[in-house]
Amino acid sequence: MRPLVFQTDFGLADGAVSAMYGVALGVEPDLRIFDITHEIEQFNIWEGAYRLLQTVDYWPSGTVFVSVVDPGVGGSRRSIVVRIRGDKYVVTPDNGTLTFLAKRGLIEEARELDECKNRIRGSEESFTFYGRDVYAFTGAKLASEKLSFELIGEKVPADSVVVLPTSDPCIQEDGSIEGTIDVLDVRFGSLWTNVPKEMFKSLGIGFGERVEVTVSTDRRIVYKNTMQYARSFADVYTGEPLVYMNSLGCIAVAINKGYFAKAYNIGIGNNWRISFQKVNQWR
Amino acid sequence: MRPLVFQTDFGLADGAVSAMYGVALGVEPDLRIFDITHEIEQFNIWEGAYRLLQTVDYWPSGTVFVSVVDPGVGGSRRSIVVRIRGDKYVVTPDNGTLTFLAKRGLIEEARELDECKNRIRGSEESFTFYGRDVYAFTGAKLASEKLSFELIGEKVPADSVVVLPTSDPCIQEDGSIEGTIDVLDVRFGSLWTNVPKEMFKSLGIGFGERVEVTVSTDRRIVYKNTMQYARSFADVYTGEPLVYMNSLGCIAVAINKGYFAKAYNIGIGNNWRISFQKVNQWR
Amino acid sequence: MRPLVFQTDFGLADGAVSAMYGVALGVEPDLRIFDITHEIEQFNIWEGAYRLLQTVDYWPSGTVFVSVVDPGVGGSRRSIVVRIRGDKYVVTPDNGTLTFLAKRGLIEEARELDECKNRIRGSEESFTFYGRDVYAFTGAKLASEKLSFELIGEKVPADSVVVLPTSDPCIQEDGSIEGTIDVLDVRFGSLWTNVPKEMFKSLGIGFGERVEVTVSTDRRIVYKNTMQYARSFADVYTGEPLVYMNSLGCIAVAINKGYFAKAYNIGIGNNWRISFQKVNQWR
Repeated sequence: MRPLVFQTDFGLADGAVSAMYGVALGVEPDLRIFDITHEIEQFNIWEGAYRLLQTVDYWPSGTVFVSVVDPGVGGSRRSIVVRIRGDKYVVTPDNGTLTFLAKRGLIEEARELDECKNRIRGSEESFTFYGRDVYAFTGAKLASEKLSFELIGEKVPADSVVVLPTSDPCIQEDGSIEGTIDVLDVRFGSLWTNVPKEMFKSLGIGFGERVEVTVSTDRRIVYKNTMQYARSFADVYTGEPLVYMNSLGCIAVAINKGYFAKAYNIGIGNNWRISFQKVNQWR
Repeated sequence: MRPLVFQTDFGLADGAVSAMYGVALGVEPDLRIFDITHEIEQFNIWEGAYRLLQTVDYWPSGTVFVSVVDPGVGGSRRSIVVRIRGDKYVVTPDNGTLTFLAKRGLIEEARELDECKNRIRGSEESFTFYGRDVYAFTGAKLASEKLSFELIGEKVPADSVVVLPTSDPCIQEDGSIEGTIDVLDVRFGSLWTNVPKEMFKSLGIGFGERVEVTVSTDRRIVYKNTMQYARSFADVYTGEPLVYMNSLGCIAVAINKGYFAKAYNIGIGNNWRISFQKVNQWR
Repeated sequence: MRPLVFQTDFGLADGAVSAMYGVALGVEPDLRIFDITHEIEQFNIWEGAYRLLQTVDYWPSGTVFVSVVDPGVGGSRRSIVVRIRGDKYVVTPDNGTLTFLAKRGLIEEARELDECKNRIRGSEESFTFYGRDVYAFTGAKLASEKLSFELIGEKVPADSVVVLPTSDPCIQEDGSIEGTIDVLDVRFGSLWTNVPKEMFKSLGIGFGERVEVTVSTDRRIVYKNTMQYARSFADVYTGEPLVYMNSLGCIAVAINKGYFAKAYNIGIGNNWRISFQKVNQWR
């Protein structure tokens, strides 16, 4: 049977996620259910979108993801199911949650979820918990193969999926690379950027060499310093900053055993720019 | 096999819940174990009782729940197993945890759990972790059907189950409805009341119409204002308050994308009263 | 199939643990995966070591534990797999995580994990997430018996495992017992000491009798008072301190429904000493 994997901004402190589990097991008692996280910041679609990007590759072919960060619940936003590369599926409100999967070209086919047909019986008067009534229920049907993707609802163009505005990293005139800080490694405070390792390599910086890092927001510089480009945290002193390639193949910035984002009050999103420049040793 | 579902106030930061899982799998390696939550506030029996109410309906017939919010552990409070509607079971200290299930008339049969017979071998000198030694162990036996409900211990009257004091919602002389705030939607700060939608409908307020909401504690008014009765959050502006029917069929109050309880310092329980009144448009 | 049990300091707020689950299910889709906790304080090897001690006994024979508290990731610390008593296994960086298991003499055989052979394909350039690339992958292979313990890598002496400095409890000249505070019961703030019940019994204190408790750090006394030696919390008043035997068979100190560690600012580790003395009633 296909694994069913939940992600929400509900937290685990009340019974909401448990009700979703129960509904899914009511569809099929042998279903195997897992989680990405339920601690997405409330209503933070961007973060939910990123967590999908961070994890879908590591789950086996056939996995069905259900992501519910749904500030417009009960409103006019449509519900959608997409098939992504590797025969995996995502069930979600179509509100930007698929942004990063779409940007990477992973979406192969999209279908609008018919919320009237695909909801648990007796929930017609409930308008605030589609996670339980519609998404968990439909995800469970798909994962248990009691419902085929084709019967979810009408096919819609894959590029009709709602995406949040993002910007791409690029090489500047002076040879530096500028990107955005897409997300934090929550627990360790590292900055995860959208600069892929291949682009970074064009700077010609080897492990152990120094790189100048500038962080700005609203065109205001928040941090500017040089640090080592290291293979891993263990290559620098405790408390020393470093640039490294993160576990998704993008460039990241951290303090070894420290918390970079807190140290300099750094946030995430399109308005948080970061640039990398080779240090001119003769300057 | 029957699903086994745990709820505690232990948190997930140490190994306590994991030890319960291990004990259950020691009883039966193929057991399927799930959770309601482990973040019940410490010793808060009321909250634990509510989380059961919120979730049991959504789990399939046959499910065995183990709830351990047990401030009197090692004391004289008895342990109990009840069969509730739908052939489901709850294993718990009998300290009020069953309050809301009892109030809804869901308890069909109750048996006192014989703590001497139903505990893991070698735990006779341990008096502080019945969750692991008695409840997880017994729940696993029940869920794996290695122990039948009838052999748990002596049958006791269903109405002998300990319940916390609660009060019922009612219609006042002036036509308003008064109830209590039973619990918060932890993550979003909505107030969940004990006023069922059927009673609320007697006010004759349609979607989009306005309702006057008053919150008081110790007879002191904490909040009094009018707001829209909406189908869902998406019907009002961001930051606007609303009255809506929650996912359990009761009336709730929220701020769209805000946190009502924090905004007005509102708590839960019998001493937090809330009333709803139709707004007189000619007043 | 053997249960696979994860422990990390990653938290559950981002996708890291989920990626580990996905990788493990990619090795074997029928694998059963569980957790100790993912809320070990960041880089706190001591706490991770203690949580293993607290839980391994309660999991069935055959269980494979993967513990990743890995401040030296990507550095020279070796990776190791040990077989412990009861045919259980622990996969971990060899950085002290096995301290308490080693002290109890539970380690039967150790093998150095060959990180080149035992890693997920395509992860050769990733140096910061061995939890996903090496440990979850290897744990899943072991649990699904696709890889035997013997083929993990070279056998190394069991006593070559890295251990953190600890000290043993002992009986002082004046008859008191001195030990250390090894860990807190996180949620309830109790102090869990390294004094086993057998040693405590030598004081000749019965349930209901009083014991003098002294806590010191840096030879500075932080707390000194007498309290009851109780069977359980229910034996003392709310707010009253007590000495009791915890669920691991060691002596602990708590405030009934209070939070001892917070009340007196008490920490854990070798530098936090605690002593127990029989109260002389004629003094």
